[in-house]
Amino acid sequence: MSDGGSRELVSINGKRLWGSLMELAKIGATQKGGVCRLALSDLDKQGRDLVVGWAKDAGCSVVVDKIGNVFMRRAGRNNALPPIVCGSHIDTQPTGGKFDGNYGVLSGLEIVRTLNDKKITTEAPIEFAFWTNEEGSRFVPVMMGSGVFAKAFTLEHCYAAKDTAGRTVGEELSRIGYVGDEEPGDHPIGAYFEAHIEQGPVLEDAGKTIGIVTGVLGLRWYDCVVTGMEAHAGPTPMALRKDALQVATRIMQETVAIAHRYPPYGRGTNGFVQVFPNSRNVIPGQVKFSIDLRNVDSERLDAMDREIRSFIEQTAAATGLKITVEQVSHFPPCPFEKGCVDAVRKGAEKFGYSSMEAVSGAGHDAVYMARLAPAGMVFVPCKDGISHNEIEDAKPEHLEAGCNVLLHAMLDRAGVVG
Amino acid sequence: MSDGGSRELVSINGKRLWGSLMELAKIGATQKGGVCRLALSDLDKQGRDLVVGWAKDAGCSVVVDKIGNVFMRRAGRNNALPPIVCGSHIDTQPTGGKFDGNYGVLSGLEIVRTLNDKKITTEAPIEFAFWTNEEGSRFVPVMMGSGVFAKAFTLEHCYAAKDTAGRTVGEELSRIGYVGDEEPGDHPIGAYFEAHIEQGPVLEDAGKTIGIVTGVLGLRWYDCVVTGMEAHAGPTPMALRKDALQVATRIMQETVAIAHRYPPYGRGTNGFVQVFPNSRNVIPGQVKFSIDLRNVDSERLDAMDREIRSFIEQTAAATGLKITVEQVSHFPPCPFEKGCVDAVRKGAEKFGYSSMEAVSGAGHDAVYMARLAPAGMVFVPCKDGISHNEIEDAKPEHLEAGCNVLLHAMLDRAGVVG
Repeated sequence: MSDGGSRELVSINGKRLWGSLMELAKIGATQKGGVCRLALSDLDKQGRDLVVGWAKDAGCSVVVDKIGNVFMRRAGRNNALPPIVCGSHIDTQPTGGKFDGNYGVLSGLEIVRTLNDKKITTEAPIEFAFWTNEEGSRFVPVMMGSGVFAKAFTLEHCYAAKDTAGRTVGEELSRIGYVGDEEPGDHPIGAYFEAHIEQGPVLEDAGKTIGIVTGVLGLRWYDCVVTGMEAHAGPTPMALRKDALQVATRIMQETVAIAHRYPPYGRGTNGFVQVFPNSRNVIPGQVKFSIDLRNVDSERLDAMDREIRSFIEQTAAATGLKITVEQVSHFPPCPFEKGCVDAVRKGAEKFGYSSMEAVSGAGHDAVYMARLAPAGMVFVPCKDGISHNEIEDAKPEHLEAGCNVLLHAMLDRAGVVG
Repeated sequence: MSDGGSRELVSINGKRLWGSLMELAKIGATQKGGVCRLALSDLDKQGRDLVVGWAKDAGCSVVVDKIGNVFMRRAGRNNALPPIVCGSHIDTQPTGGKFDGNYGVLSGLEIVRTLNDKKITTEAPIEFAFWTNEEGSRFVPVMMGSGVFAKAFTLEHCYAAKDTAGRTVGEELSRIGYVGDEEPGDHPIGAYFEAHIEQGPVLEDAGKTIGIVTGVLGLRWYDCVVTGMEAHAGPTPMALRKDALQVATRIMQETVAIAHRYPPYGRGTNGFVQVFPNSRNVIPGQVKFSIDLRNVDSERLDAMDREIRSFIEQTAAATGLKITVEQVSHFPPCPFEKGCVDAVRKGAEKFGYSSMEAVSGAGHDAVYMARLAPAGMVFVPCKDGISHNEIEDAKPEHLEAGCNVLLHAMLDRAGVVG
C-alpha cells in the first residue's frame, strides 16, 4: 500500500486517542481536572501497568531497563534494524495536566493500533516508550530516565536520589516492580520522535496547528547575590545607602534587555527573588535572585552570557556593592536532525495542516535522545500556552493532527513494506 | 547658681549614666551583646521595676497611666507649672540593642540625679517618662503608649491588640502590674525633649557629636501589586510575556529616582518584595512590594506621592498589566517647635560640642508629644548608623554629651531657681 499518497492517506483514530488520554488521566485525577501522578508512586505504577497492558493487547513486546524506562515494540519486516522510536513520559507535576508527556506516549500507542488496524508492515520495527521521572518534581534530576539512558547521569547516582520523605529512586522503582534487566542505553534507536503540547503560546498566537520543532533552546541558569548594607529606611539619606535591591533591579532589567537584543529566540527571566531582611522600613541588605538566559544557538547564548557577566561587573564597580554570579546549570542548544525535522514537515504537508517552524523552550526527553540518534519533535497548541497546571488543555482535533504527523514522520523513517 | 555660665557649667556624670545603661541592659541581655525585652513581657516588668526603683531612690514621685506610661517627677519650686518632660521607651526589638529608647529614659534619670547632687531647684517640675510599647514588635500599633496619650488611638483599641500567642495588651499590662489610674493624656506637659541615638549614619559621617533635631520626616507607605501572567520561562517568547517582575522593578527604580529628585531629605525605599510563584523557570505572574516615601515637609512629600502615582498609572497604561497601589500608612512631617530646637542648640554651644541640624527619619514618641506641647530631640551618633540590631553601639562620650545637652535644654525651659 501507499505510504501517504493522496489516494489513501493513513490516519489515526482521533477519538480512540482522546479516549486513551482520558482513561489514563483518571489515575491521579484531581478535583480541578488535572492529574497528580508523581514518578514511582503507586499511581505511577497503575499508569504504567495500564499503558503496558494496552501495548501488550496491541501485540507489542515490552522491555524495561534498569532505570524503569519502558519500550513497547511492534515488530517490522527487518527486526535487525534499529527501531524508530517515539515516546515521552507519564509522570506528572503535582498540579499537572492530562496532556504533558501522556500525549507523546499515547500517540505512540495510537500509532501501533492504527498500523494494526490497517495491517501495515514497516521495514524497521516501531517502538513507543515512556521515560522515568521526566518531571523531576519528586526526584532530582529531571529527565532522569532519558538522562541515564544517554549517560548524562549514572544509574547509581539516580538510584540514590531521595524524595522529601527520604525514599530513594532505587527503593521505589523496586517497590513498584519496574526495575528491568536491560542496561540503560543498551537499546538501539534508529530515530526518535516526540509529540508534545507546546507548553507555550506561540502556535495559538499564530493560529497554527502543527509546530515543526527545529530544536530546543539552550539555557544558562545563574544565581546572583547582591550584598549591600541593611539600614533603616527613614534615617539613612540616599547618598549613604547601599541598597541591594536597587542594584539587583538594574540587573533584572538588563536580563530582559539582553534577551531583546538577541531575537527572535533570546529569552531572559528572573523567576526567583529573595530579599533580606524583607521588611517594609529596612533598606534591603542582600538580594538573591535567579537569572535564566536561553537561545537557539550556542554562539548567541554565549554572547548573552558575556553580556550579563560584563554588566554585573560594571554594576559592581559603579556601585561599590559586592555582586556574585554563579552559573548553576547549562544545557547547550539542541538542534534536531534535518531529516527528522523534514519528516515532520512532510507529515504536516500531507494532511494540509497549518504549520510553522518552532523551537522548544522547555527541555524534553528528546534532548537526550538527540545525543544518541536523529531526533525530532511535533508540537500542538495548548490553551493559553499553559502547562504544569491543572487547567492545562488542548483541542482533540489538534491532538489528532499531531498524532497523524507523528505517524507519518515515523513511517517516513521506518519505511513501509505493505 | 548660674544655669550654665562658663564659670560653673552644670554637667551630668557620664560614668553613672553608662553604668545605669549597662545595668538595665542586663535584663533581657542576648548572647550577641544586645537586648531582647519585648513590651509587657516579664522582662519588661523587671526593666520597669528597676527604673521606677531608681527614680524613687532619687526622690521622684511616680504616676502610671492606664496604658502603662510611667512619669517620674522631681518637684520644682512652682509645682502648679506643667512639668518639663523628657522620655523615651525601654521596650526593645527582639534583636534590639542597649541604647535605643533606654538612652532617652536613663538620661532623664541621670538628669534628676545630677540636679539632686548639685542641689539645683528648677522653677517648673522636671519629669522623665517611659512610654509603653514604642517598638511595636510584639503588639501593633507602634508608639502605642505615646499614641494613646496623644489620642491617636483609643485605649480600648490598644487594650485589644494581640501578640502572636493571642495575649492582649490589656491582659499583659494587668499581669505585670502596670495599669495605672491616670487617664492617658490627663497629664500636663510644659515641653517635651527626647534624647536618642540617631539610628542613622549622618552624624558619624559628618563627624559631629550632637544632632539638633529640627523635625521628623513625614512618611507615606504603600502596598503595590503588579499582576501579569505566570508562564514557562523557556517556551514563552519575550513579546508574548506579561512579566510582573519586570514591571515591578521599573517602579522600584522610580521609587528611588523620585527620592533623589527631592533632596536633601527625600527618601525612597522598597523594603519588602514577594514574587509569585517565585520559581526559577517561571515568569513571575504577580509581585507585591512596599513603597516607602519620606520627606521633611508636606508639600514635598505630597509631590512625591503624586509622582509615584502618576508613574504607576503611566506604567500600567504602557504595559497593559494591572497595577494597584494602596496607601497603608501616612504620618505627616513633624517640625519641632523653634524654641525647643534652639534650647538644644544652645545646650550644644555651651559645651562647645560639634553639632549640626538633623532630621529624624524614624518615628519617635516625640512625634506624638509634639502634637500636645513644644517638643525637641537631641541625637547622638551610633556606630555605623546601626540600630534595631544586637550590634547597636554608641560611644560613652557621645552619650554623656547628649545627656548634657538634654539637661541644659530642659533647664532652659524649666528655669533654674537656685
